[in-house]
Parts: sequence; structure tokens; C-alpha cells
Amino acid sequence: MKEYKPEEIKYLKIHGRTAGGTAPLPLFWTGSGIELNVKGSELWIEVEVDYGLYEPWLGVLINSAKVSRQMLNKGRYWLCLFRGMNENTVKNVRVIREVQAMNGDPECSLVIHSVRADGEFLPVKERPVKIEFIGDSITSGEGAVGAREEEDWISMWFSAADNYTALTARELNADYRVISQSGWGVLTSWDNNPDCNLPKYYEKVCGLLTGEKNEKLGALKENDFSAWQPDIVVVNLGTNDSSAFNTPEWKDEATGRHHKQRSNSDGTFNEEDLKAFEEAVSNFFSKIRKYNPKAHIVWAYGMLGNSMMPALFRAADAYQRKSGDRKVSVFQLPNTTDKTIGSRSHPGILSHEKAAEELSVYLRSLL
Amino acid sequence: MKEYKPEEIKYLKIHGRTAGGTAPLPLFWTGSGIELNVKGSELWIEVEVDYGLYEPWLGVLINSAKVSRQMLNKGRYWLCLFRGMNENTVKNVRVIREVQAMNGDPECSLVIHSVRADGEFLPVKERPVKIEFIGDSITSGEGAVGAREEEDWISMWFSAADNYTALTARELNADYRVISQSGWGVLTSWDNNPDCNLPKYYEKVCGLLTGEKNEKLGALKENDFSAWQPDIVVVNLGTNDSSAFNTPEWKDEATGRHHKQRSNSDGTFNEEDLKAFEEAVSNFFSKIRKYNPKAHIVWAYGMLGNSMMPALFRAADAYQRKSGDRKVSVFQLPNTTDKTIGSRSHPGILSHEKAAEELSVYLRSLL
Amino acid sequence: MKEYKPEEIKYLKIHGRTAGGTAPLPLFWTGSGIELNVKGSELWIEVEVDYGLYEPWLGVLINSAKVSRQMLNKGRYWLCLFRGMNENTVKNVRVIREVQAMNGDPECSLVIHSVRADGEFLPVKERPVKIEFIGDSITSGEGAVGAREEEDWISMWFSAADNYTALTARELNADYRVISQSGWGVLTSWDNNPDCNLPKYYEKVCGLLTGEKNEKLGALKENDFSAWQPDIVVVNLGTNDSSAFNTPEWKDEATGRHHKQRSNSDGTFNEEDLKAFEEAVSNFFSKIRKYNPKAHIVWAYGMLGNSMMPALFRAADAYQRKSGDRKVSVFQLPNTTDKTIGSRSHPGILSHEKAAEELSVYLRSLL
Amino acid sequence: MKEYKPEEIKYLKIHGRTAGGTAPLPLFWTGSGIELNVKGSELWIEVEVDYGLYEPWLGVLINSAKVSRQMLNKGRYWLCLFRGMNENTVKNVRVIREVQAMNGDPECSLVIHSVRADGEFLPVKERPVKIEFIGDSITSGEGAVGAREEEDWISMWFSAADNYTALTARELNADYRVISQSGWGVLTSWDNNPDCNLPKYYEKVCGLLTGEKNEKLGALKENDFSAWQPDIVVVNLGTNDSSAFNTPEWKDEATGRHHKQRSNSDGTFNEEDLKAFEEAVSNFFSKIRKYNPKAHIVWAYGMLGNSMMPALFRAADAYQRKSGDRKVSVFQLPNTTDKTIGSRSHPGILSHEKAAEELSVYLRSLL
Repeated sequence: MKEYKPEEIKYLKIHGRTAGGTAPLPLFWTGSGIELNVKGSELWIEVEVDYGLYEPWLGVLINSAKVSRQMLNKGRYWLCLFRGMNENTVKNVRVIREVQAMNGDPECSLVIHSVRADGEFLPVKERPVKIEFIGDSITSGEGAVGAREEEDWISMWFSAADNYTALTARELNADYRVISQSGWGVLTSWDNNPDCNLPKYYEKVCGLLTGEKNEKLGALKENDFSAWQPDIVVVNLGTNDSSAFNTPEWKDEATGRHHKQRSNSDGTFNEEDLKAFEEAVSNFFSKIRKYNPKAHIVWAYGMLGNSMMPALFRAADAYQRKSGDRKVSVFQLPNTTDKTIGSRSHPGILSHEKAAEELSVYLRSLL
Repeated sequence: MKEYKPEEIKYLKIHGRTAGGTAPLPLFWTGSGIELNVKGSELWIEVEVDYGLYEPWLGVLINSAKVSRQMLNKGRYWLCLFRGMNENTVKNVRVIREVQAMNGDPECSLVIHSVRADGEFLPVKERPVKIEFIGDSITSGEGAVGAREEEDWISMWFSAADNYTALTARELNADYRVISQSGWGVLTSWDNNPDCNLPKYYEKVCGLLTGEKNEKLGALKENDFSAWQPDIVVVNLGTNDSSAFNTPEWKDEATGRHHKQRSNSDGTFNEEDLKAFEEAVSNFFSKIRKYNPKAHIVWAYGMLGNSMMPALFRAADAYQRKSGDRKVSVFQLPNTTDKTIGSRSHPGILSHEKAAEELSVYLRSLL
Repeated sequence: MKEYKPEEIKYLKIHGRTAGGTAPLPLFWTGSGIELNVKGSELWIEVEVDYGLYEPWLGVLINSAKVSRQMLNKGRYWLCLFRGMNENTVKNVRVIREVQAMNGDPECSLVIHSVRADGEFLPVKERPVKIEFIGDSITSGEGAVGAREEEDWISMWFSAADNYTALTARELNADYRVISQSGWGVLTSWDNNPDCNLPKYYEKVCGLLTGEKNEKLGALKENDFSAWQPDIVVVNLGTNDSSAFNTPEWKDEATGRHHKQRSNSDGTFNEEDLKAFEEAVSNFFSKIRKYNPKAHIVWAYGMLGNSMMPALFRAADAYQRKSGDRKVSVFQLPNTTDKTIGSRSHPGILSHEKAAEELSVYLRSLL
Repeated sequence: MKEYKPEEIKYLKIHGRTAGGTAPLPLFWTGSGIELNVKGSELWIEVEVDYGLYEPWLGVLINSAKVSRQMLNKGRYWLCLFRGMNENTVKNVRVIREVQAMNGDPECSLVIHSVRADGEFLPVKERPVKIEFIGDSITSGEGAVGAREEEDWISMWFSAADNYTALTARELNADYRVISQSGWGVLTSWDNNPDCNLPKYYEKVCGLLTGEKNEKLGALKENDFSAWQPDIVVVNLGTNDSSAFNTPEWKDEATGRHHKQRSNSDGTFNEEDLKAFEEAVSNFFSKIRKYNPKAHIVWAYGMLGNSMMPALFRAADAYQRKSGDRKVSVFQLPNTTDKTIGSRSHPGILSHEKAAEELSVYLRSLL
């Protein structure tokens, strides 16, 4: 058995944004991880895990089959990925962070220090397509695990391997990255906080993370977009922006700063606030285009209702008129039903499967 | 056994638009027909059938189960719907026209002259919901029957009982009517003919029919909208309007009148012509609203591609801004795939089932 | 358009046992029919139909897709199978009798007199496998059509095209024949009638038919087994023999002859009567083998309970020990459940699909 | 947080056979584990794990939803089952050993030392049905996890939570136990070893385990059958006995003892050896009956071929004739196909789901 630092493995494939550093290798976003082709009988990784509130979970796929998913306790320790296998066959091994980046827990982190193996590493093929998914709890796979009655907001109900991002990527044979945060939107969070939107942090490696530790790991650095250019960017935002119209005003007690997406007395959206939402969408199209000059940008929305759909189409129209950019579109995902719901009133695995089925048909038509 | 004229059966339920006359009772549109609750052992109907090119087909449902579907030869003759049944039980019987109204065949007609039974008729319950579907070949169920390799444009590949209209209505326990024509659009037909659009004939009972016989049967009369007010109007148009941008100009050799929805050299839609399409959509919203003051109007589109989706949303927006009408929306139906396609490159039964599943979830949310 | 007698069509493929005569061509058994490859735009057949109690139904498949199923009224008349098709393409057309041979209705008959076409007939390929199915109501497809609440014993609820025989044959790309009768067994009928068993009539073309008309059509002649040797004979009998243990004695009032399969007071089968059942099974194996020297004989049973399974295995054992015949086996079909039941408490289409799935996997392993 | 020894938890429900000792509590068989109803925010267990070759894996179900499955490294350590949950709701928690008892690894063991919680334990309901499953690799869930191409014989491909035993038990709302060993039979193992059969060890707690450690944990003690009387015993054995006819003779080099189930030159089973198999089956019926006087005993077989089916029926017959015991039966499970196969040429999860569906219908009919 021989031990390797990540940078010593020539054929290590890293999934998800990092700041480049691999000593140790941080797994910031849900769906991030490493992939190896290993000829050998045994493989281990050394992780270091911390959290204040929300622990990370880890999934393992061997030859594309999910074999393991586990909660990670605090500490620095070795995890065995496989053992006792035929030393002469090549195994494709993928380790995947199952839980989203945790804006609300500055201590939450998961890094890989080392790999231990008794054989050799072989090249991992580039997949022919690259997709970036940007979203909220739906894209974080919240509710894809657990019984329907679950209501606690905890890491256990999240899954990266069993949500529509992974399923769509598999269907299209794509490498993919996920940028997501539960409760957040394109303009505000579900509770009207104007700081909790994904566009604000898009340029950073994982800018919504907090805490010194994550800063040291490079989370707040500028992302190097040139290193990984997706063919498609899928944005699944709007569900929380819609909720904001029906939740109380957000107020920062310290500064007195406040925000509210208002509803009219007849239940419709306030026109001015809806306009602000549309501008946020339009601006996010611009920002994504800036960093991804050649990608198709698809706003895919509707797994938990589709009340923002007209506004999304207006915003896409406005952006297109302004920019002349023709590689943007809006796509409706199938709504979650009584039959397909999961835990925490979120899409269950059946809903994710349906979404992936529809979405992958659509994305294939673009490629 | 006793013979009845339709008007002699107190509890005869007629599905589909008619001009009121029942001597004989014409079945103009696909999905139209009669429904009876019969206590008796045997039931027959006397039909009269004619056609020049496209023969009608008939489906029979007993207690909501489809038991029969057959081509109708020319002539006036009796068809047995059931026989040998327990004379003391009540059977719900439904006869359904399986093929669309045939604009291209002035001789095509199907009427019911009489009913013969050995028992009594009982009341047929009103279903709690009423839906009107307006569409093209998709809504006519073209391709829902037949092998994939079929290419002939003939009646045999059409089905009313096995398409998304019937399936959605069943899921929502709704009475429904269908107004549809293959190849037609909201502005023009697939080949740019500006006369082949559904809005033009919406006010008539079945205004797109031709021929003296159909005129005598009342097809060209004003429809009595007050007699049947739907809770929901579903419009599934746009697929042929989209095709028109990629087909040659239509020209009436007699008058020199011509029309073409133009594409730009880069494959995008000509803006002016797209505008015309949007106006047609917007105007159709107005017209539908005029005759259906309380209905939700849902433009449901996407079973054969969704290129008109942005234009549909713009048109809905424009109509809403103009009218203040809030009970209109646009809904994306799942696209047809290699797995769900039927004959004639049209949606197969699997595609219709998926569409009905998604659509009925959405419509239920409106009710 | 040209008219042909069956014997004038070189490439006419006849499905199901006949006595050889084709003027007219009788369709005795369920699943019987004709198959044609036709290059032409239109095709008709002239049928003659009669019945006292139970009318025949007819199914039509074009290029293997079911397009029609209809009740046949009495009389001699023409039915159109297709019209308006491209005259240059070849269509595979199959006409299939949907209802079983009716022992209880001496007047019931369905014959084909003529075929009318405007094109030419082409050879129909032999399928690589031949299967004969022998059974009761299950094999007659009773209950495969109709609502669950149906209880009348009428032709309408039978289907040949939508039962496990057709589905299994399709899965294995097989030609097939069906020999079946509702209520009958291998020893007695469900109500203990010892004359109502399939083995008794196996050698005849369709020996269980009654009436002069059927006799004239050749139903009671010896079957020419050499003309069609199956690779597999599937016997699905035993369900009614099992019921006989729980129904009253059968008695012929005229002769005083009587029979009863007795149950013990603890609900178990009387050993002697069970023995008689087993001997009937064993003897039927012998008889089938006599006429089908090379076929695999599979007793496939269990779609409505499996209480006779041990006896079937004993009987197969006994037969094998006696004969040394190794090409016989017993196979359990999946039981029908609340989810898969059809009308008349019989297997529904879902149950038939499951049975065909399991059975075809097993039969393939034999080939 | 408070720490408990298993014996200190009044409402601890133990699944699977043990010798009664709980300091520590050993999990011998696959599917064994503990179940708790916990009102509190956090729950941990302290396990001690060892192995020479084959490591144990552990599954966790929260409110019947599988949330975790992980390989267990060597050592004594704490595992967190959940944390951060609402302290006022009751969670049903189940820990399940995912890998079979390992006869071939004397060092393999998994025990629970302690439980740590911050709330209280509540009673766990008895389920209304109890089932014992006895089987081989199929019943051990070998192949239910992993890609199809996997060929290594390692713990990773086993699953207790995703195989037909757990699925059948869930469908019937049953408590259940599993007694199983890969490669073993009712008479011999797949390679003719006459010591590798389940009946030999049936009376012991987990008699096929080896090694001092396991002996100390009570594995070799007599099982207390009175403590847990199943309503149904399902035996799924015969697949390896069948293989033995086609594998070389087993020979103990030390003693010269040898065994071979012989095939005839025509590929059929040697009659004498088949007899021996049947006697082993018959004797196992007797033994199971001895310890389970009231249970239905169901020999359920066929997921990897059904060549022993006639012999099983003969053996059941022989046993019934000898004993008068009527509560025994043989049931055919659906065979695994190309579509349902898993890793290591064993049934995949789809095959297990089908088997559970058929089996649970049958078992329900017995209850």
C-alpha cells in the first residue's frame, strides 16, 4: 500500500469548483468529489471533517453503481472505498459530497488529504459534455432522502447522487458541477433577504461559504472559469423568489436595512417587485454569459410550482433583446405531485427522475 | 326491443358541439358522442355514415372500459353496442367518434338516427368539471394508433379515446369537448395557409366542415356557448405555426393571394411574422374569453417541440396587460421522445399518457 | 379492385387449426385468423357470421399494431381492413378471431368467404418458432377486456390479441395456435362435468364445437398434425379441475350419469379423486406427445391460484417415469392480484402481461 | 447525552438470532440489527468491528427510509445515526447488518456495545407477522448492489435492506430473520462439499460461524426457538445443490472424504444423487417443523433457474405423506433475466422487487 497526496496522482479527476489547491483538496459544493481509475485491490482516502451544525455526508460509486452513503463524523481519518478486489481489473471510483455547501455553518468543511492504494492509477476519460447546474434546495437534492413526514432541516435529507443533476448528467454522459443553496433565489431568499442570492457569489469559487477555515481553503477566491467551460448552464432558481412574495419583510436589525417582495391584495405579485425579479434574472443571464461565452443557458424551473414562469420568459426576452444572445431559453420542469414528493415537502427521488428525463431530452436537443 | 329517436330519450347525454338538432344527431368533432345509462340486456344504435376520402371510426366504452373501435363503412345501418347482459344491472355506455372533423372531405359525416334497447334509460350524472380542448393533429390523436413506420395520412391512425384529452378528462372526472384539426394553427396551417386556423371558426358549431350535407346538419351555425360553459379551455396550438416558418409560401392560384411566415437566414423567426403569430394568440385569448367568461384558459404546448414557447408567453403577457384578465396561463407539455413516439412521427399513446399526467396535475391546481 | 377466394391467394397465411377447406375459410378457435402481406391501397374481407347466443368479435392488426376490434353482427358482409394507403408500400395485415370457440352455441360461426384488394399479395415469412397453447378461460382471454365490475358471461370480455398467448408469441417471434374453452379442465369442468375436458377433443380440428354448420365446416374432422408441428406446447389447465372439488356433483338427468371431485372435511382434496386428476394430466402429456413428437410440453399454471401445483408435478413425474420423456416440465405463472385483475374476476391485461413476461423467459430457455 | 448498555434500554428491539447476551450485542446474520423509537435530537451507537477477509457493512433506516449504508472499518468506535433533529418528535430508527454471516472468515464480527442519546426511548410495536427466511447467496442479497460487470466475491455487493427478504417483510408488515450463506445448499454447497448445508446448523444461534470470538459471543449455542416463533418459514435453497451436479467432486485432502452429485451423460441428474437431495429437503422440512410447530413452511425457489423444482415437489410430497403435515408448500419465484440481473450474475434489485411482489401475494394468501 502506498500513500499519495492529491497532487501526486497524475490522473486524479476533480469534480466541482476548487481554488486549485489540493493540499488538502476541499469539496465545497454538493456533487463535488474525486474520480479515479484504479488498478489494484484496495483503495482508501483520508478525509478531514468539521462542522458546527450541519455535518457533511459522503457517497461512493464504484463503476457507476452507488455502493455507499454515510454521515461523516468530525475528525481526520481514513475511509476505505473498496478492498479485497481483483488487483488486475480497473475500477472507476467516484467519491461525491452528498450535502450542499453550508452558508449557515462557518465550521462546516470536508477535505481530502490523501489517497492510499496498492496499485496504479490510470487516466479518467473526459466526458463529452459539461454542464453547470445553479439552483436552490431542489438542486441541492433536499428531500430526495428520508420519509415524507420528516420536517427537520438537517444534512441527512440531502442527496447529490440521487437528484436530477446527477441523473441528467448520467443520461447525457456529462461531467457536471453544482452551485446551489437551499432557500436562496436569484434576487432574494424565501424570506426576502436580498443578500441570499446565487448571482452575488457566482464569480467566487464558493463565495457563499463563511468562516476562516473555508477562506483559507480558497472558497472566496475568484473562480477560474477558463479552466472549465460548460456546454450548458442550467439555472433552476425562482422558487424561493416566489415564496418571498408571501413571507414577511426581511430586516437587518443592526443596520435597519430591509426588503420585501410585495403581493397585491388580490394575491397577484406587485408589479414593481416582479420587475426587480425579472431584472435579477436578466442580469444573471448576462453574468453567466460573461463567464461562459459559449454555453447554452437554460433556465429550468417548475418542480415546486411554476408561478414565476411568465416573469422568467419576460426576463429571458428582455435579456435577448438587449444582448442579441440567442443561446438562452426557459424550460419547464415537471411539477412534484403527491406521488413523487419526498421528505420536507420537497421533490422525492421519483420527481427528480421525471425532471431528469424531461430535461435531458431538452438538453440533448441543444447539443 | 324498442326503438327511440334521440329526442325521445330523456336521459341521453350528448358530448361535443351540435346545433341542437337530433334528427339525426351529428357527431362532428373527434371525441364527440353519446352517453347513456341503460338498464337492459341489449343496446343498438343506428348510424348513417358517408365519406369521400376519410372514413369515420367509432369507439365504444362500457362502464368506462374501451371494448371496441372500428372503421365505419358507408351506409345507414345498425351497430350493436352490447347484448346478452344482465337486464337488471345499469350499464354506462359511451359511443365516441374516434376521428377528427374532416375539413378536407366535404362528404365525410357520421350521424346517429336511432337507438334500440330492451330496457329503460336512467339519468347520466353531470361530471363536476367541464373542459374544452382546442388543437391540431396532436389534439386529434393523430399517431396514437398504428406502427411507427406508418406514413399515410388516413383516419385509421387517429384516436379520440386514447389521447391526452380523454385521459386528462378521466383523471379530472370531467366532461369535455374537442375542437381540432390536423395541420392547422392559430394563425396559419403548417404550409402557411392563413385560412387554416382554428380561431376563424371558433364561434361556429363546426365551422371548418365543408359540404352541403354538413351545412344541413348545422355545422356552420353559431355555437350556443351558453348551453355549455367550460371551467377550463385548453389550447394546444402553435406546432403548425412553427412549421410554417420552414415551409414554402402558400399561394392561392386563383386569386394570387399568398402568405409566408418568414425565417431569417440564421434560422431564427422573422420578427414581424412572429409578431403576427403573437397577435393571433393574443386575439384568440380575447375571443375565447368573450365566449367563456369564467373559464381558465390554458395554452398547453410542447408535445412536438417548444420553439414557440417564448412567443406564447409574450402573447399571453400582452393579452393580460391589455385585458387585465388573470385567468390565463401558458403550460409546457412534455416533449415526445424516441420512446414515446407513435405513428406518423406524432405522439404515441405513451406520450399522450405523460402529457395527461402533467396537464391534469396543473389543471387540478387551477380548480 | 379484384376479388379473391382464399384458395386463390398463394401467399395467404392461415392461423389456427382448420380442416383444410377454404371455401369458405372457418375461424374456429380464438386467436385464429389470416395474415397477408399486401401491396396496395385498400383491402377488404367478406365474412359470414352467425350465432344463437354468443357473437364473434374480430381484431385487426396492421404492421403488428392493433387498429380495430369489433363485434360482428349476423350476416354475410364486407369489412374494410384498410383504405387510402400508399399503394406502393407493403402492409402486413392480420385478422384475428377475438372470442373462443363456443361449445355452448351450436349456431356460432365465423367464416371468411373472400378478400378484395387493389394490389398484389407478397409472401408472409414463417416465424422461427411455433407454439400451441391449450387452456381454459384464462387462455381464452376472458376478463382481459371490460371493467372490473362486469359479471355477465358474454363474448365482449374476451380478447385473443390482448392475452398472454399473443403476448408470449410476440415476445418469442412465434406463430401460435390456441385450443381453449372457458370452464373446462383436463379431467372435468369447474362444475364436475367429465365430458368438458380439452384432452377429449384434442385430436379433432375443433371437436368441442357443436351444430351441423360447424360439422360441415370440418370442425369434427381429425386434425392433420403433420401440417403444423409446434416447437412448444403450453398447457394451462387445472384451474377448473381445482374448482370442481368445491362445487356440487354433476348429474346428467337423462342417463343418471354423475361425477364429483370430492373434498375432505378438512378442505383438502380427496386422494382418489386427486389421483384421477393426476392420471388425466399424465394421459394428456402422453396424448400431446403422440401428436407432437418433438415439442417441449410445458404445463404452465397459476394465474388464478396454484392449488393443483403439487399434483401437476406428481403427474409430470409419473408421466416421465413411465415414458422416459424428458421434454416435459411444469412452470408456475404469476398469480393475479388486486392490481392486475380484469373483468369477471379473471386476469386483466396487466396479469396477462406479467404472465407473458415470465413465460417467455422460460420458453426461451428451452429453445 | 447519556450512554446506555443495550440491556439498559427497556424498549430495545433486537432483530435476528442472538444467544441472549447483549454485553456486547452481536449481529450475526444478515438482516439482523436493532430497532428503537427515540424521542430526542441525537443518537449514536458504539460498534466493535473485526474481520480477516470480509468486512461487515451497516445500513440505517430512519422512519423506514434508508438513509445510510457504509463499510465498517476495524476497531471500536461510535457511529452517529442522526443528529440535529427535533427533540420532541419520535423517530423510528433501525440499524441493519448488510452482509451475511461469514463462515469463511473466523475473525469477522460486528457487535454493538452501547447507545448514546439525549432523549428517551419509547416502545417499539410488535409487527403482526413473523417470517424466517433461510437461503443462500440470493437470500444474502449477493449482487443486489454493484455494477453488472463486478465479479469479485466481496462484502460490498451484498445488501440486506435491498433484497427480497426485507421487501417481502415490509409488504406484509412483518418482523423477520434471515439464516443464509452464499454457495451453500440443503445437501451440499455448489462445489459438492457436504458440510456446507444450512440444515446442519439450523438449531444453533449462528452455527456456521467459526473462530473463538464468535463462539464466545454465543454463535454456537442452541437457539432458543421458543423466544421467537415465526408464522412463516421461507426456504430458498436448491440453487447451489443444482450447481453441484455440474462441478467437480469435493475431496477433503486430509481425510480423503469426498462427495459428488453426479450427472448422467445426457446431462440429466443421477437418480440416486437426486434422491439424496430430495431426502435432504424432506428432512429439512421435518427439522424446521420440529422447531416451528405452527409455521407455514414455504420452499420458495427459482430466482436463478428452476431445475430442482420437480425434486422439490417430490420431496414436499414425500414429507407430507410421511408426516401428514399440511402446512408446507413449494412456490416458484420469478427467474432473473437480462433486465433484472445485478452484479456477480446474481439477482439485482429489480429481480428482488419482482420476487418480493410475487412472494408476498402468496404468503398473504396463507395468513
